[in-house]
Amino acid sequence: MAVIRLHLPPDRSYDIVCGRGILGQIGGRLSATGGRRAVVIADAAVSATHGRRVAESLADSGIQVLPVEIPAGEGSKSVAEAGRVWGLLADQAVDRNTHVVAVGGGVVGDLAGFVAATFARGIPVWQVPTTLVAQVDSAIGGKTGINLPAGKNLVGAFWQPSGVFADIDALATLPHREYVSGLAEVVKYGMIFDPDFFAWLEANAADLVARSPDQLMHAVERSAALKAAVVERDEREITGARAALNYGHTFAHAFETAAGYGRLLHGEAVAIGMSCAARLAADMGRLAADIPARQDALVARLGLPVSLAGVGPLDADELLAIMARDKKSLDRRLRFVLPSRIGAVALVGDVDEARVRRVLAG
Amino acid sequence: MAVIRLHLPPDRSYDIVCGRGILGQIGGRLSATGGRRAVVIADAAVSATHGRRVAESLADSGIQVLPVEIPAGEGSKSVAEAGRVWGLLADQAVDRNTHVVAVGGGVVGDLAGFVAATFARGIPVWQVPTTLVAQVDSAIGGKTGINLPAGKNLVGAFWQPSGVFADIDALATLPHREYVSGLAEVVKYGMIFDPDFFAWLEANAADLVARSPDQLMHAVERSAALKAAVVERDEREITGARAALNYGHTFAHAFETAAGYGRLLHGEAVAIGMSCAARLAADMGRLAADIPARQDALVARLGLPVSLAGVGPLDADELLAIMARDKKSLDRRLRFVLPSRIGAVALVGDVDEARVRRVLAG
Repeated sequence: MAVIRLHLPPDRSYDIVCGRGILGQIGGRLSATGGRRAVVIADAAVSATHGRRVAESLADSGIQVLPVEIPAGEGSKSVAEAGRVWGLLADQAVDRNTHVVAVGGGVVGDLAGFVAATFARGIPVWQVPTTLVAQVDSAIGGKTGINLPAGKNLVGAFWQPSGVFADIDALATLPHREYVSGLAEVVKYGMIFDPDFFAWLEANAADLVARSPDQLMHAVERSAALKAAVVERDEREITGARAALNYGHTFAHAFETAAGYGRLLHGEAVAIGMSCAARLAADMGRLAADIPARQDALVARLGLPVSLAGVGPLDADELLAIMARDKKSLDRRLRFVLPSRIGAVALVGDVDEARVRRVLAG
Repeated sequence: MAVIRLHLPPDRSYDIVCGRGILGQIGGRLSATGGRRAVVIADAAVSATHGRRVAESLADSGIQVLPVEIPAGEGSKSVAEAGRVWGLLADQAVDRNTHVVAVGGGVVGDLAGFVAATFARGIPVWQVPTTLVAQVDSAIGGKTGINLPAGKNLVGAFWQPSGVFADIDALATLPHREYVSGLAEVVKYGMIFDPDFFAWLEANAADLVARSPDQLMHAVERSAALKAAVVERDEREITGARAALNYGHTFAHAFETAAGYGRLLHGEAVAIGMSCAARLAADMGRLAADIPARQDALVARLGLPVSLAGVGPLDADELLAIMARDKKSLDRRLRFVLPSRIGAVALVGDVDEARVRRVLAG
């Protein structure tokens, strides 16, 4: 087991606990902070398994548990579902001494985090991510949100959790495609922050695909530590440091939107987006010419796509329009996070549209 | 004109500008912070008057204005209306460089503030309160929120404005009952923080009822300064200092809920609530026996009620149940902010229910 401390001002600092079979520790940790009631929000896919284990751990520590199940899938990140959960909390007379515990993947974490950020102007939330992408990325750092018909995560809040529990054993039962999708974010950490970790991923790709626990533990722990470090430097995306995490994501969001949500998993879109971003950087002379192929090779060995070939043709005009609308864009000009070498990226503004079209054309 | 600086960490400090005919200054102030687009959210009652003046000031400073009108009344503080405004912002490709400007009373400020707090995980908001209660209370301090069927302000966020513009001249056209209602919060500041201000209110009650500009300016400026000082000490209601502002409000919320929203104006409920709180404090031996009558005399001279006589009988069991559900209550025990003298209050927990019933019975 490893405990990573995420250091922010005292009222917002917290531990990220990574380990095997640690769900039983949650009751003790939450109870130590004075919590006596907890709302356990889990999606239908995990509520009877991990959700129940978490609820039992809480009950064993004398905490009163109110279970809330939400439908599985991105559709739950909606105004309507947030409204339904707010209503359930109100009916249960939830107050600021009640804690929310989010058990599941990114959808549950984002929705439950947003509900916690906004109920009674903010109540504590604990994140218990049970997917790889949630363990290495979305559960850490306080970004919460829901979608609008016009776009993903358009509504949300920065709301740091009181703690994160990443149980590696929970990953054993993930569907293959969903598990592999999470590896895209792991590769991202190597590319943007840590050349040694990138090389380690190249050396251990086969074990990671096979979910070998030791390798998986290292990948989750290292990714979580890198994520925590950048959140410490830029909690609210103001200094620009946190923007590094959007490597591949401006492309990815456009792919997801244009393809229609659900056709591409988020990590698959990120994998293709990183490939585009690396080629764009090389095309601009910002990155050595051999790096895009090296990144593509690692991504492909992990079982992830590096091109849109499997998705079918997407309209370049539409993709460009979506990217210009991205909430990280500045007054609708195209901006991208681009690598300068393995382990370092920069935010590059005013990118020439013709170059982007060339990259999109493959 | 007076400018009160509200000091918080640099990213959340701001000016409260109080004066006559100052709406024309908004464009210059907003433009000086780099804003180039603004969404002006106003309710139907002020959108053609104050809302238009604000929009003209912004346009004169070269800022692109997107006007949004919301229906007048408490009904606009709803999940549905927040969802509608989020959608309008998304349609207009609002990003973090767009500012929200809220023009109107507490309903507009609370809704627009909540929408700004949560759109794109937070965009700047400027408060332009045009009612007395909003100028002295709700527009200052960053509390934003909407209502649920189960209760008022159950959903919300702490989100400090970038600036507050309180134009005294906007108060001249307020309906009498609404104007007078705002004076309850002014009396509250004297009772909880400032005996000299309380005495000044006693000496100037007639001029305040007549809306004499000099007296009104002093009352707004002093109230705003007292509110700002307590927000500085307890931005998020953690240390307990800010709880002083709830003087009279635990009773008031119960009266508003039990009477049905709309029958009592908020300030009227607060006036009756302060009378109850003072009598409760005297009954507990915490306050000199003559103070409740002195407070009632001032409140009555301002044209506000001091008892539920005009509302008709409310059920004591229902009122107690609502008060126990209040989000400031701790695990459902009764807590009240009670005065110990004019100018000082304390949060008192575990108040005997029988005493509360006695006070409610008059």
